[in-house]
Amino acid sequence: MTKVTAQMSVSLDGYYAGPRHDGDDGWMESAEAAGFFRVTRWAIDTMGWRERQGFEGGEPDVNSEIITETFEAAGAYVMGRRMAEGGEVPWGDEPPFHAPVFVVTHRPRAVLERQGGTSFTFVTDGVESAVEQARAVTGGKNVAVAGGGSLVRQVLEAGLLDELELHIAPVVLGSGLRLLDDNLRLPDKQAIELTPTRVVHTPGVTHVRYSVNGRAALVLDDRGSGGSGPATVWTE
Amino acid sequence: MTKVTAQMSVSLDGYYAGPRHDGDDGWMESAEAAGFFRVTRWAIDTMGWRERQGFEGGEPDVNSEIITETFEAAGAYVMGRRMAEGGEVPWGDEPPFHAPVFVVTHRPRAVLERQGGTSFTFVTDGVESAVEQARAVTGGKNVAVAGGGSLVRQVLEAGLLDELELHIAPVVLGSGLRLLDDNLRLPDKQAIELTPTRVVHTPGVTHVRYSVNGRAALVLDDRGSGGSGPATVWTE
Repeated sequence: MTKVTAQMSVSLDGYYAGPRHDGDDGWMESAEAAGFFRVTRWAIDTMGWRERQGFEGGEPDVNSEIITETFEAAGAYVMGRRMAEGGEVPWGDEPPFHAPVFVVTHRPRAVLERQGGTSFTFVTDGVESAVEQARAVTGGKNVAVAGGGSLVRQVLEAGLLDELELHIAPVVLGSGLRLLDDNLRLPDKQAIELTPTRVVHTPGVTHVRYSVNGRAALVLDDRGSGGSGPATVWTE
Repeated sequence: MTKVTAQMSVSLDGYYAGPRHDGDDGWMESAEAAGFFRVTRWAIDTMGWRERQGFEGGEPDVNSEIITETFEAAGAYVMGRRMAEGGEVPWGDEPPFHAPVFVVTHRPRAVLERQGGTSFTFVTDGVESAVEQARAVTGGKNVAVAGGGSLVRQVLEAGLLDELELHIAPVVLGSGLRLLDDNLRLPDKQAIELTPTRVVHTPGVTHVRYSVNGRAALVLDDRGSGGSGPATVWTE
């Protein structure tokens, strides 16, 4: 069954990049990029290793497996405008998706056909429509929400996301673009419940995959049979 | 060797409680409490189970073990004022610490002696002093930063923290009191690096323990031998 999935590399404090860089150039030298490079290093190291080793068929490094598995599971992508525009030049003639990509944007634009099975379709009637259009062409695989963070938030908030995987890098950035930030508006005493379905840890990154159960009210539990003793030690 | 440690239950989006409740009463019914109860439920469930089973010596539930281990590792505590004042009544005559507690506050106050080995010493000359006073009386065990979140942040920011364990509850709260929030001020392109030393996962919570390596500059890596290809797919 087709699932709507998202995965994101984040710091321990939840940032997927440093503070936002505005302006047309200088991104590579920006604090935004510095944070982004740090949290995605685990993937880059693996890709670099793969290139050096002449992958495929190399040593079954667990991070390589996770990358490969994630690409293979996706039959179509949904993407934010900023990510799509930022990638347009560096991805070149043969972007790595090898699948249809639906870009959520306010700016109408003709479909962009690329080599290797990648196409970019610009969707101007909202994220739900983009997900539906993607779902129609997955061939039974998943719809992967490629990013950026604000799109992942929108999909989660709209109740469209079935699975979320975070790749948690062991670093505290202190500031930047946060995946699950305060713009995720939930009513008071309401939360989104998830179930962890897989945890894979390596020295450079902890991968935690969740299935998204949906919204639930936060109810007062009985604090372990009415006591308010030792348990309050635990946090605040 | 004595380490300075902290552990905290947080939601997947990093909150240890719901939005802050101000005012003298009504906390139990507040959104702050609702969030706090949700992220600490894994511990409460365990404590409740232990009480019902007449612990010690019950089934070796991994969450119970982690709680027991954490209490046993601490020879002294450092605590924020709000937590100490909030706990003063509910903790009663025999608070669960059974060790000296040093409370960081601006308000001088006489030492509070309690039964079972717990005492509260109010430290008015800063967090570093509180940690040092605690370190002097651990008897070789650890100094545990009990919370709340702002104190944990201060200790981390000051470079005093050796170990951080997060108990990540599978829930997105959307708003509230965040442990690693934007008040953790780090210069641009500087981060705090950690090393994951233990990951324990259960259906209700994922425990991730880190040793804190300290501050490091964020440097531009070569993106896997200069390419800017597939890897950029990963986040934004």
